[in-house]
Amino acid sequence: MVKVMASGTFDLLHMGHIYYLKEAKKLGDDLVVVVACDETVRKLKHEPVTPEMMRLGLVKELKVVDEAYLGYKDDMYSIVEEIKPDIIALGYDQIHNEKQIINELKKRNLNTKVIRLTKHVDMNDIDGTRKIIEKIIDAYEFQKNMETIERQ
Amino acid sequence: MVKVMASGTFDLLHMGHIYYLKEAKKLGDDLVVVVACDETVRKLKHEPVTPEMMRLGLVKELKVVDEAYLGYKDDMYSIVEEIKPDIIALGYDQIHNEKQIINELKKRNLNTKVIRLTKHVDMNDIDGTRKIIEKIIDAYEFQKNMETIERQ
Repeated sequence: MVKVMASGTFDLLHMGHIYYLKEAKKLGDDLVVVVACDETVRKLKHEPVTPEMMRLGLVKELKVVDEAYLGYKDDMYSIVEEIKPDIIALGYDQIHNEKQIINELKKRNLNTKVIRLTKHVDMNDIDGTRKIIEKIIDAYEFQKNMETIERQ
Repeated sequence: MVKVMASGTFDLLHMGHIYYLKEAKKLGDDLVVVVACDETVRKLKHEPVTPEMMRLGLVKELKVVDEAYLGYKDDMYSIVEEIKPDIIALGYDQIHNEKQIINELKKRNLNTKVIRLTKHVDMNDIDGTRKIIEKIIDAYEFQKNMETIERQ
């Protein structure tokens, strides 16, 4: 049984997330997903829109996901030691450095393969958390402008 | 085999959607979900944030969902005639009128039960599409204000 680990923020689920998880699952039998906790997201990216328990909750509801856990806030490798995956699948746009991860895993006596996935070429324009946020803000600004025009 | 039908926009998935779908599924064996097409959402609510194929795609990826289809734009009953559900499960906040639905179903010789589900009392504060949008806009306005203050 080959256990694959995927990880991410999964804030505002979109088809890009699904594509990443499906590609990860293809590498083995069981897919375990680590959802970054709010503190980690704040440190590495920005304030998450939806809180960690909701992000975790939704990921658990996906057909492609066998198990899902919240990551720890200080050491990203603690959860890897617990899950003991055979393979870690990195998304095409995840900032992690493969070599650094492999070194850190070796230090912990973990013989885990690290595989970088490729981008889905047919990705829809809206399949990105940032793009969803931009669309909401654009609609909001448009509405505000229309209201200003109507008041004039 | 009892076939339950649920329906909705499912724009920006949240745990409120999951709760509704799980409660609907409990009423029978198979859960078929009708996702409102963009034209219907525009007519009944507002411009959807995410397009119909993405909303449908994500709903299909949920463990609780057995089948999912896009609704037709003009007649909401055409898809019911095709699916032939034993039960239609209405969400606690869906605007549809039960009696009107039952009458329309009878006209089409459909012997479908209509059941109104109740609200989940432990619902998180962010579990609503409108609430997610509000949180994004609040964060955006806060950031703009901070930038204005910093420039002064």
